[in-house]
Amino acid sequence: MKLVRNLPLTGQVLGRSYNIASMELTVNQIAQMLGGEVLGRGEDKINMLAKIQDAREGQIAFLSNPKYEQFIYTTQATAVIVKKDFVPRKEVKATLIKVDDPYVSFTTLLEEYHKLISFQKSGVEEPCYLGKDTTIGSNAYRGAFSYIGNNCVIGDNVKIYPHVYIGDNVRVGNDTILHSGVRIYPDTIIGNNVVIHSGTVIGSDGFGFAQQEDGTYKTIPQLGRVIIEDNVAIGANTVIDCATFAGDATVIRAGVKLDNLIQVAHNVEIGRNTVIAAQTGISGSTKIGENCMLAGQVGIAGHLVIANNTSLGAQAGVSKSITKEGQRLLGYPVFDIKEYFRSYAVFKKLPDLNYRLKELEEKVNALVNHT
Amino acid sequence: MKLVRNLPLTGQVLGRSYNIASMELTVNQIAQMLGGEVLGRGEDKINMLAKIQDAREGQIAFLSNPKYEQFIYTTQATAVIVKKDFVPRKEVKATLIKVDDPYVSFTTLLEEYHKLISFQKSGVEEPCYLGKDTTIGSNAYRGAFSYIGNNCVIGDNVKIYPHVYIGDNVRVGNDTILHSGVRIYPDTIIGNNVVIHSGTVIGSDGFGFAQQEDGTYKTIPQLGRVIIEDNVAIGANTVIDCATFAGDATVIRAGVKLDNLIQVAHNVEIGRNTVIAAQTGISGSTKIGENCMLAGQVGIAGHLVIANNTSLGAQAGVSKSITKEGQRLLGYPVFDIKEYFRSYAVFKKLPDLNYRLKELEEKVNALVNHT
Amino acid sequence: MKLVRNLPLTGQVLGRSYNIASMELTVNQIAQMLGGEVLGRGEDKINMLAKIQDAREGQIAFLSNPKYEQFIYTTQATAVIVKKDFVPRKEVKATLIKVDDPYVSFTTLLEEYHKLISFQKSGVEEPCYLGKDTTIGSNAYRGAFSYIGNNCVIGDNVKIYPHVYIGDNVRVGNDTILHSGVRIYPDTIIGNNVVIHSGTVIGSDGFGFAQQEDGTYKTIPQLGRVIIEDNVAIGANTVIDCATFAGDATVIRAGVKLDNLIQVAHNVEIGRNTVIAAQTGISGSTKIGENCMLAGQVGIAGHLVIANNTSLGAQAGVSKSITKEGQRLLGYPVFDIKEYFRSYAVFKKLPDLNYRLKELEEKVNALVNHT
Repeated sequence: MKLVRNLPLTGQVLGRSYNIASMELTVNQIAQMLGGEVLGRGEDKINMLAKIQDAREGQIAFLSNPKYEQFIYTTQATAVIVKKDFVPRKEVKATLIKVDDPYVSFTTLLEEYHKLISFQKSGVEEPCYLGKDTTIGSNAYRGAFSYIGNNCVIGDNVKIYPHVYIGDNVRVGNDTILHSGVRIYPDTIIGNNVVIHSGTVIGSDGFGFAQQEDGTYKTIPQLGRVIIEDNVAIGANTVIDCATFAGDATVIRAGVKLDNLIQVAHNVEIGRNTVIAAQTGISGSTKIGENCMLAGQVGIAGHLVIANNTSLGAQAGVSKSITKEGQRLLGYPVFDIKEYFRSYAVFKKLPDLNYRLKELEEKVNALVNHT
Repeated sequence: MKLVRNLPLTGQVLGRSYNIASMELTVNQIAQMLGGEVLGRGEDKINMLAKIQDAREGQIAFLSNPKYEQFIYTTQATAVIVKKDFVPRKEVKATLIKVDDPYVSFTTLLEEYHKLISFQKSGVEEPCYLGKDTTIGSNAYRGAFSYIGNNCVIGDNVKIYPHVYIGDNVRVGNDTILHSGVRIYPDTIIGNNVVIHSGTVIGSDGFGFAQQEDGTYKTIPQLGRVIIEDNVAIGANTVIDCATFAGDATVIRAGVKLDNLIQVAHNVEIGRNTVIAAQTGISGSTKIGENCMLAGQVGIAGHLVIANNTSLGAQAGVSKSITKEGQRLLGYPVFDIKEYFRSYAVFKKLPDLNYRLKELEEKVNALVNHT
Repeated sequence: MKLVRNLPLTGQVLGRSYNIASMELTVNQIAQMLGGEVLGRGEDKINMLAKIQDAREGQIAFLSNPKYEQFIYTTQATAVIVKKDFVPRKEVKATLIKVDDPYVSFTTLLEEYHKLISFQKSGVEEPCYLGKDTTIGSNAYRGAFSYIGNNCVIGDNVKIYPHVYIGDNVRVGNDTILHSGVRIYPDTIIGNNVVIHSGTVIGSDGFGFAQQEDGTYKTIPQLGRVIIEDNVAIGANTVIDCATFAGDATVIRAGVKLDNLIQVAHNVEIGRNTVIAAQTGISGSTKIGENCMLAGQVGIAGHLVIANNTSLGAQAGVSKSITKEGQRLLGYPVFDIKEYFRSYAVFKKLPDLNYRLKELEEKVNALVNHT
């Protein structure tokens, strides 16, 4: 049960109040959403999520860690999500919603609310451009000045904000949101429940050139595509290049979360549920494993393999494949993060170390001459 | 009296000629702009700013540093801005404009000219999109394919270039320029006299996810906003994420100058008159003080506080709060910039140092065995 | 005869099959394109490029390195490009195209194919915006929502994708492609055969401010332009700032290849055929020589000169001019890449080194006390 709180150059901590005033659900509606059982006043209205120690009337909190049990007897929350087997030792004023895992339920509620606020737009704003032989599912939003090329298949409940560009032969799954100014090159495939933020470019040419004897370069045509699987989130102004060869793809696997201003080169593959912070760059044909955590401004060379569960500290530089799983690494080139900090502690004293060595040399020479 | 000349990865030096041919102001008009007193031919035309030693007819220069006084007796400039109490010791051909501080007046003139060339566009180019219940002040420019959502308040003399996207409930102050393709998410507040360059994204979702037992992540809704105060300048393709919690904001204080391709995460605050060079990244919830100078490609971890007047060298990595003001720092993690360079000088000789140590060990062991 | 395969943060290797099914050229047509001589069935159809050892019917391969000669006797390729003076020692089934340099011819064929697939669009999609006194050459494509300002001159066969913004007084040469959402500020000059990918910004203001006594900054007007010469390729979401002074320019020389998310500051000049990988930043007024190779995430300070043929490893930081040509450098500040790795090997053992030194000090002190 962890939060994404350790990413050196990003991070997000649960724990403060979420104002969800526009939500206005009843306790019963929330319980139904979570598959939970209500003990108390199911018709009470909820409009905010909060920490159990801070929550007030109209708010919902959760109790997962027994360490916080004391607060359930004093909380002003209207409702609290608790474990199925929770038995209060004193009187509890709040209505209880009993679930299998309160933390999971609370984060489910957060995500549901995220969807609620993200999918409000629908309909078509004019002018917008629609190519030939393109189909669009139900309940779509197409903002003014959005552009969809020929032969595209766009799913249900897709939200296409103003100034989005979608080239020819693109497929977009259901419940996907493309924010203003997203650029999707031809032939890209995007899954369900994907969010892409403004200015991000998907499918631009890989950086491939063939040098000539006179020092000039000829362009190598980039004929592959980008595939983005389900439940991927991508930040703003990130770039993902297409694969070089026809039939190949740069692949972002299900559940990957990419931050802003990231570079993903041609033919890269990023494994399931890997999280990458802002301004990191991944060179061509590198394969990154599952459940990795890359901090900000990391650089990874091309044609490498990065093992599952690898954690790379901020500004780390990777020049060789990482084959052992679960390491935490730092430096350029990277090695164990704790060892890096130990070496760095000595690095800061290097002038002193150099001086001590010199002094010792003199002493020893004196001794040698003496003997 | 300093110029921004020391930013390691950026910088701008005053000192060459500015062609302001399209300006064509009289000496009197310039004196009025600066609140100065004219001694000489007030009707002469000025069309360029120049250094006093290089200036020619039709140009204006300034004399601030007494070291340069000699040049005022030989300059070909039509006019020279001088201190109120300046008394020439020889004949001066140029017309004088007497002011309190010639350097300040010269830079004021530069900024006025900047405005002159930046605010030339006005009127509405069709098609462009305007939402419901949005008000726009006088003398606005709305370029073709610009998009303004519902319930926005746009000030006077605002210049909205083609392809700008402004979401719902956004406020923009007076005299602000949004260049082509700027993206402003809903609920953002932008002050007066702000300039934002092309492709920059304001208000995208903070990078916040809650990890589940199975390794997947659920999205934490990002409900806060971005507030940009007066006199802020932001370069191209920079990203500023919104705050996580409703009622909170990522805040860019008055007078801040941000370069291109910078990452500013959720809930960051950047203090007044801080200057940040290109490709720097600031992680979530970090508070940067006033009058700081961050060079290019700097990375700062989340939840830190950086003291006022901190100067960070290029590619510096900050992993702990900086509490003492006025330091110049480098390295990862950062320490004093001079000490960094001293350590680095020894780092370059480390193989030699290692060899010397080995040799010494042998000598000492020989001595020990000998005795 | 090299390929761009050594760029640490990018790279591209020739050698797999290119599906050029839509090409469908005859061997004769290809031979004519390459100025080659046909030995065999000139009317056979070619629809793919492939490696000689993998090629099948309908495909074309090349033989340059004598080491691979064995494969020409077994290849299933329909045609093989060979050297003018190639004399088979056994029977060859494939049709031969004899040329001066098979590698050059093969890469020419790649580039031709790149053009073929890149220049398919033509005509005008409505709505799009065209300013006054702007001329556009023959066979142009102007996508929906593209914007071209006043007094522009756009060459023949230029492809302007949806949402491109071109400010006033811009010149664009022949055969140039501007992908969706490219932003060209006023007064920019772009040559022939240039490709610019989505979201890239050309000509935004240089980062120039004059500090005042109270810590605030006044904006220095940026009056110069950007000049991009012929045969330049620029990736996605890169930024190139304009020069500061009227009459000056930030210049990208002929044949330069820039990757994604690169920062090029005001007044920079990049020499012919220099290649720069993603996320590198170059500060103001720095001049980079010809035929340099900069890896990803490199940072270069302002007002420097970088010699021709310089190679900079990933994440290198350059703070002084590099005057000697042909060096390979790494670190911050940079020095010889091999020496960097030697020093870094010792850096990783610094805690041990420190311990050995301490131990030796104790031994020596014991000896000194003993004697």
